Amino acid sequence: MEFRLSELAARLGLTLRGDDCVVTGVGTLESAGPDDITFLADAKYAALLDTTRAAAVVVDEAHAAGVGRALVSANPYMDFARILFLFTPAQGCLEGTGVHERAFVHPGAEVDPTADIYPFAFVADGAKIGPRTRVFPGCYVGEGCVIGEDCTLYPNVSLMAGTVLGNRVMIHPGAVLGADGFGYVPTDDGRQKIPQVGRVVVEDDVEIGANTAIDRAMLDRTVIGHGTKIDNLVQIAHNCILGEHCTIVSQVGIAGSTKVGRGVIMAGQAGVADHVTIGNDAIIGPQCGVRTDVEEGRRMGGHPAMDYGTYMRNMSLAPKIPDLFKRVKALEKELAALVTKRTGEDNE
Amino acid sequence: MEFRLSELAARLGLTLRGDDCVVTGVGTLESAGPDDITFLADAKYAALLDTTRAAAVVVDEAHAAGVGRALVSANPYMDFARILFLFTPAQGCLEGTGVHERAFVHPGAEVDPTADIYPFAFVADGAKIGPRTRVFPGCYVGEGCVIGEDCTLYPNVSLMAGTVLGNRVMIHPGAVLGADGFGYVPTDDGRQKIPQVGRVVVEDDVEIGANTAIDRAMLDRTVIGHGTKIDNLVQIAHNCILGEHCTIVSQVGIAGSTKVGRGVIMAGQAGVADHVTIGNDAIIGPQCGVRTDVEEGRRMGGHPAMDYGTYMRNMSLAPKIPDLFKRVKALEKELAALVTKRTGEDNE
Amino acid sequence: MEFRLSELAARLGLTLRGDDCVVTGVGTLESAGPDDITFLADAKYAALLDTTRAAAVVVDEAHAAGVGRALVSANPYMDFARILFLFTPAQGCLEGTGVHERAFVHPGAEVDPTADIYPFAFVADGAKIGPRTRVFPGCYVGEGCVIGEDCTLYPNVSLMAGTVLGNRVMIHPGAVLGADGFGYVPTDDGRQKIPQVGRVVVEDDVEIGANTAIDRAMLDRTVIGHGTKIDNLVQIAHNCILGEHCTIVSQVGIAGSTKVGRGVIMAGQAGVADHVTIGNDAIIGPQCGVRTDVEEGRRMGGHPAMDYGTYMRNMSLAPKIPDLFKRVKALEKELAALVTKRTGEDNE
Repeated sequence: MEFRLSELAARLGLTLRGDDCVVTGVGTLESAGPDDITFLADAKYAALLDTTRAAAVVVDEAHAAGVGRALVSANPYMDFARILFLFTPAQGCLEGTGVHERAFVHPGAEVDPTADIYPFAFVADGAKIGPRTRVFPGCYVGEGCVIGEDCTLYPNVSLMAGTVLGNRVMIHPGAVLGADGFGYVPTDDGRQKIPQVGRVVVEDDVEIGANTAIDRAMLDRTVIGHGTKIDNLVQIAHNCILGEHCTIVSQVGIAGSTKVGRGVIMAGQAGVADHVTIGNDAIIGPQCGVRTDVEEGRRMGGHPAMDYGTYMRNMSLAPKIPDLFKRVKALEKELAALVTKRTGEDNE
Repeated sequence: MEFRLSELAARLGLTLRGDDCVVTGVGTLESAGPDDITFLADAKYAALLDTTRAAAVVVDEAHAAGVGRALVSANPYMDFARILFLFTPAQGCLEGTGVHERAFVHPGAEVDPTADIYPFAFVADGAKIGPRTRVFPGCYVGEGCVIGEDCTLYPNVSLMAGTVLGNRVMIHPGAVLGADGFGYVPTDDGRQKIPQVGRVVVEDDVEIGANTAIDRAMLDRTVIGHGTKIDNLVQIAHNCILGEHCTIVSQVGIAGSTKVGRGVIMAGQAGVADHVTIGNDAIIGPQCGVRTDVEEGRRMGGHPAMDYGTYMRNMSLAPKIPDLFKRVKALEKELAALVTKRTGEDNE
Repeated sequence: MEFRLSELAARLGLTLRGDDCVVTGVGTLESAGPDDITFLADAKYAALLDTTRAAAVVVDEAHAAGVGRALVSANPYMDFARILFLFTPAQGCLEGTGVHERAFVHPGAEVDPTADIYPFAFVADGAKIGPRTRVFPGCYVGEGCVIGEDCTLYPNVSLMAGTVLGNRVMIHPGAVLGADGFGYVPTDDGRQKIPQVGRVVVEDDVEIGANTAIDRAMLDRTVIGHGTKIDNLVQIAHNCILGEHCTIVSQVGIAGSTKVGRGVIMAGQAGVADHVTIGNDAIIGPQCGVRTDVEEGRRMGGHPAMDYGTYMRNMSLAPKIPDLFKRVKALEKELAALVTKRTGEDNE
């Protein structure tokens, strides 16, 4: 893979400052070699411009003067991400070979001729797989699943029966969509399973992390909205509805029937109770425990979740709590002494 | 799939009110169509009885009058769950075909002729698989595993050597049973692995969620008791003993050698330390951190775990802690002023 | 498997007290049968020496007198672990058979002739697999992966393109190495993916637990240092650098670009923020939430993380916080009464 800087500038609508050359790779300001292109997104690393060995740097106007060969960008981080796409071949070593003879595709399934089904992938009866979608080894696509265009199912992904994926959905290895929700009726003989007959619906441009689990609905649908990004090891329970463009960081857990608005961010290891509504653009902090509805645009922290400002004050106060107990005890003693003294005086 | 209401009433011992008809599907009060059956389990949704399009509703006696066609039940939720079973075909598209030619079954394994082993499943030497058990694609059944009757191993489940499953055990995709426990002896050259030579034993009627991990014992056994239900992404460490009919919600972690009694409930993301004993029917709250033994029937919350009532009071007080610091400071000032004044007066 | 006690003593450099005999298995003091060998590592279980049925016990000098047949050791736990290795056959039922005809190995891959590649394992173009390494069913080894000697990839492990493993690395079922890091640029049209073009590098003697996820770097490398042990369901984000001989317990999450020193211990469910540095030999407590750098040798607890001693005091004080509010209220009332009284007196 190699590109002339002038070619990159033309493709991305950037301005080239300095002489043209060929770049063959990418790196950070510190790791880039003399044939690599790099970027400066955060001014605090500007000093590294003096020492980088990179052939060229994607920078904003303010820092372009300090760079031998610059691709000047209004958003260097975004434009460098676009350059990375050019340098990054898709993973997979059997691209364009269609259904491999060592894959299993049920005669009742429909696979677009431009899709790739790798060895040891299993496509069940009634499943439909769209154009240019790639199903890696060890994936299971259950009965009646419908997968759109340009999706990627990395190795060992399990889609249980009836799961629906839109277009350009990317699912990382080991993720499980459409396993039974965790629903039981308590009885005298223990818990009786409630069959989970709904499904999981994933809209366009969603990305789902490694070993994440998204359960099918009891009835109806569990929905992941358009453009939402879900990290690794996340749990999304039955009947949850996630809005568009949410960001759900690793190890978050969302309990059943919770509704999450548009653009919500949940930081790592946060937990949300069942049947809760999270408003648009809310931000849930790391390890935060949300038990009740969160209004639009609110930022929450702590366990139990509280207003983020309050939480940050609590964070700074927590180490002082042992001292607070001492101070209260001292106050009590002092006040008691005062009262005793007064009483003594009164009795005099 | 279709049933006459009279047939459902007869099968489940319910009373039909209104005229008979055929139902072909299931739904919620809101989503059910004119050929579907639905249910009312919680009186707070009773208003939806007026607007539902459902053909029939499973309801209790108190609400039956408001329904055109009612199946009257003492426990509508449980009876609707039983109806769901009738409407839900088992997943899988190769039922009843036995060992598929693209499965791998070691010659030293014993597979009951009524069991189904899907393509790309692997059954190792000495493993035994009982009647009507289904092993989906990508499963691994290690050496000497023993699996009972009517079990389901959904795709990509790994049972490491020696794992024992009772009857009617259901394991969701990606779960791992019998991987090595996390045991090391510290030495001057780092940590030396302690071989884990025990096994995992799962009793009858257990359900295990997607991507959950249950480690083999160092010696002896890790045990999951009869009827216990475990959700997704749960960690159960080596040598844990879980009693009967426990409910372990998603992302719970239980450290090594901990003993959990009968009927214990652990809510999402709770953690329990090693070598702890949890009494029967205890309830551990969400994200709760348990470090010490919990008595029978106790309900615990918070991190560190404390009595649930105390925890709930703390929950409501936490946002007021910054204010408490201010109040104590004000008290100190006021008291100091008072003392100064008195001292002044005394000195007068 | 059977050994004479004299043989075990000779191999491990221990002293045999009592007559020689053959042992055929291992167990705990409680579970061992009359042909088994067991151990006493913790003096609090010494009373069990009187009742154990074991043929022999690995004990320290102080307890050897109470044992019929003793293998006397300066470190009974470590020496018993070494005995366990002798009694534990490696898992796997196709050892020494090389590349199985039902595995898929790309013609562009290089597999050492002493390596075993099980059925349904997939080895991609350009991958290299070293001597005596075993790749179990359902594993995926992506393009250009390099795996050293004596490694074990248990079933359904996914190594994405470019992942590098040293020697003697053991990866438990379902773990995913080298999936894309969770990196996006916010734009007006939602989040644009930043291609993740780095890789995961795992040094020698590392062990990685079931269903753990370690993401590839955006650029450069995510590194797991020599001898580090990682438990199940752990999340390690892109560009993390973990030092040598760390111990990372189940369900820990480490966010992007965090640097972890040598010998660090993180207990279960702890979380560490991104771009943080954890000093050598630091200890992070269970469920602890670390947001800022931790100095070498420090022990941290709680969320937010604080000094462990402070945290332990807070732990004991937390249940008393409701009472503290009451005490402050009482003080306020009492002080107000006092002031009122004084004011009244002053006004007299």
